[in-house]
Amino acid sequence: MASDDREAPGSYFLSQTAAQKLDEELMGEAYGFTLEQLMELAGLAVAQATYAHYVAPGQNSVPGEKVNVVVCCGPGNNGGDGLVAARHLHHFGVPVSVVYPKPGKHVHYARLVKQLNALDVPVLSKLDAPSNSHDALARSTVLVDAVFGFSFTPSGPENVREPFKTLIERMNDYDKILCVDIPSGWHVEQGLQPGTLAIQKPDALVSLTAPKLGVRNFSGHHYVGGRFVPPRLAQHTGLRVCHYAVADQVTRFHEKVDD
Amino acid sequence: MASDDREAPGSYFLSQTAAQKLDEELMGEAYGFTLEQLMELAGLAVAQATYAHYVAPGQNSVPGEKVNVVVCCGPGNNGGDGLVAARHLHHFGVPVSVVYPKPGKHVHYARLVKQLNALDVPVLSKLDAPSNSHDALARSTVLVDAVFGFSFTPSGPENVREPFKTLIERMNDYDKILCVDIPSGWHVEQGLQPGTLAIQKPDALVSLTAPKLGVRNFSGHHYVGGRFVPPRLAQHTGLRVCHYAVADQVTRFHEKVDD
Repeated sequence: MASDDREAPGSYFLSQTAAQKLDEELMGEAYGFTLEQLMELAGLAVAQATYAHYVAPGQNSVPGEKVNVVVCCGPGNNGGDGLVAARHLHHFGVPVSVVYPKPGKHVHYARLVKQLNALDVPVLSKLDAPSNSHDALARSTVLVDAVFGFSFTPSGPENVREPFKTLIERMNDYDKILCVDIPSGWHVEQGLQPGTLAIQKPDALVSLTAPKLGVRNFSGHHYVGGRFVPPRLAQHTGLRVCHYAVADQVTRFHEKVDD
Repeated sequence: MASDDREAPGSYFLSQTAAQKLDEELMGEAYGFTLEQLMELAGLAVAQATYAHYVAPGQNSVPGEKVNVVVCCGPGNNGGDGLVAARHLHHFGVPVSVVYPKPGKHVHYARLVKQLNALDVPVLSKLDAPSNSHDALARSTVLVDAVFGFSFTPSGPENVREPFKTLIERMNDYDKILCVDIPSGWHVEQGLQPGTLAIQKPDALVSLTAPKLGVRNFSGHHYVGGRFVPPRLAQHTGLRVCHYAVADQVTRFHEKVDD
């Protein structure tokens, strides 16, 4: 088992620098992963967590109402994870659309959009906020927040610039928000900062590879995905890797305080 | 749902040419997948099927004996799927080793080997056959056959050349053989041909994207993985896509004769 390989338990949480370094190391000379591989596994984990939490029978869906999902994607790797997740959700039979106001530059993002186009998944530039947060659309729509990830740093006093300012304002009209890696607008290490534009009430969170320091007090439904961190790299990073069951790609986050 | 998009039911089975064309189309201009993406999803499906069939409690493991897996990999994409599967099996906590007698040329295969090295998964050049097929090693070892895939064509009267001739001879000493896509040495459309060197008694099979014509009479445990075929491409290919449950990446193969 992966956990047997580590000498020191380390921390469950990553600083922003540690998260960036872990990502670089995974895709560096020693470990040899490609972005395409890691993004595929991360996006699949996001899709499976979304499905498990909101769509699977007996979960948080409203009986009799068909769940639909809108995935809001930013211009970086967090958005790329969202594009992958949207594709898998479509294959799971879930009606899904994507909001992608400012496509990122990496060639792989364009491929991911092409893959969505081939499935006729709508890729839109704007999010239509429900007129009333208690209407049927808002109740049956799950919003996946893949706007900003662990590289996010506030851009001046306004925290977030357009087109993401308007996007995040509208996202806050939804109740069922599942965030990818870190809720958009949150400080990666300090969490939600008062008075900043950010996702205010995330319902669920899927941390990727490991939770970031900014979500250590997150009290919503917390999942972890990204079952690919080599134990040697985790140990080197001082990271305590979450336990996954059987052949699952997603797990519930639980801090073990007793060992 | 994906199945709603198709007008004609088509066939569950692919010819060799159709399988090659489907693969080319997936990675071509219209669908835009990369090898790294598809191989990651295919290899994950192989690992999950192996886990579900041989390792999960209540399955085909011998009580009290720890299952270990040896993945035999060829020089092409079938072998690449095997390399990915071995890595995921390691993360699932399964003791795994790889036999890879003739590394393939694609740069991604070298990365996949590096990823195994980083986990200390042994990558060997030869398979040690058990001295007695009833000994503990044979009983507890599951052999994954990822030697030849849907591009296989017999190489003259001997069917298979070295180093794969010896490898396949030794593989046949094992009882629990799960084959990836097509049992190695089988004719992709005609199946096992009398008098040829091939896997003689596959216990289980994971077809990728769709079963090939050569396994239409396979009577063992048959799984299907590769939940990424766009319905439009399936329809164009005349392919009937297998049904997957919930957010699963693997399904049991069943021919539906009634619709």
